[in-house]
Amino acid sequence: MSDYRLHCFALSGNSYKVALFLQLAGADWESVFVDYLGGETHTDRYRSEVNEQGEAPVLEHNGLKLSQSGVILDYLAKTTGQFGPTSDDEAREIWRWMLFDNHKFTSYYATLRFMVGVKKSEETPVTAFLRERAVGAYRIVDKHLVGKDFILGSRPTIADISLAGYVFMPEPTGIESSEFPAIEAWKARLKQLPGWRHPYDILPGPTSL
Amino acid sequence: MSDYRLHCFALSGNSYKVALFLQLAGADWESVFVDYLGGETHTDRYRSEVNEQGEAPVLEHNGLKLSQSGVILDYLAKTTGQFGPTSDDEAREIWRWMLFDNHKFTSYYATLRFMVGVKKSEETPVTAFLRERAVGAYRIVDKHLVGKDFILGSRPTIADISLAGYVFMPEPTGIESSEFPAIEAWKARLKQLPGWRHPYDILPGPTSL
Repeated sequence: MSDYRLHCFALSGNSYKVALFLQLAGADWESVFVDYLGGETHTDRYRSEVNEQGEAPVLEHNGLKLSQSGVILDYLAKTTGQFGPTSDDEAREIWRWMLFDNHKFTSYYATLRFMVGVKKSEETPVTAFLRERAVGAYRIVDKHLVGKDFILGSRPTIADISLAGYVFMPEPTGIESSEFPAIEAWKARLKQLPGWRHPYDILPGPTSL
Repeated sequence: MSDYRLHCFALSGNSYKVALFLQLAGADWESVFVDYLGGETHTDRYRSEVNEQGEAPVLEHNGLKLSQSGVILDYLAKTTGQFGPTSDDEAREIWRWMLFDNHKFTSYYATLRFMVGVKKSEETPVTAFLRERAVGAYRIVDKHLVGKDFILGSRPTIADISLAGYVFMPEPTGIESSEFPAIEAWKARLKQLPGWRHPYDILPGPTSL
């Protein structure tokens, strides 16, 4: 058995956050497919045995079963000594961006991308609402990245890995990546890191409906 | 000058999270009014001098300027020794619920309440979308609280304080609190804690448009 078991699925950028860390850290890991499209995360079994919050990813390691990508990334940084903070100031800065990611950057974009890019929804008031919110969050991250290689400055941390959850997903969302040049440059730097892989190359399950 | 200066406003349940901690901890604090309704958080001055992410709350303490309620609550728990974890397991459990709060529990409810309860928006596809998501998150927290006094069990922590951000706000949202009896019982316990105050009694600024 591998050191790490990751309950995940390809369409889930939140799963990708953890898979990307494990790749970049050179960890020995295996995936356990979660059939999200088939409704698995809504079953009583999943909620009682895997995750009461009904989400992926879930990471199993050393007898622990961890959920919430932010918790998992913080745990992995501490456990492996990689991509974590080197001071209390850095720890707060990392959490500041991981929280912003969960609240606004990944959150609105992921739902928009699922509706428009995966389910091929027509344009609705909800997709317009989500896109406006996602663009607002993208502008803040793009501005922050001007003049920086990574969120904390010169080296990548779990703040970058968290924010990177959905940015490599290929589905159209009506948001033009060219409007966010600092994010595009940051994505190119992430792709150059040893071990980087595209989400659809490392996560199990279908990549379309 | 007080020990803590909190940039905040009454309509902001995210501000209330920090104010509630300071109240429960018996801290010496003062508020700095943020004119959110007047557009202050969108100004260049606010984003360059107070918070690049354009949000409240922001806490000033000992020369530090902290944003993101989750970061601030974690900092206050460590600084004061109150309402924090007593083990690594508890620390992860607290962050698991603070992340769920930021992503789904506070997030959808706060936006719904601002549209329906504060701006008095008519029912739209967006308010229906937000309500469905908020109810899903409320169901998960309600189920978790069955048989527990607080999120971690017998004592209140910053996980409870984070989740409590908007639950005392009085505006109607089309969600019936009677559908969530465990949340209602938990709210009653929170109100019994020494120092508890209603958000509109301790935060500055208007409570309606």
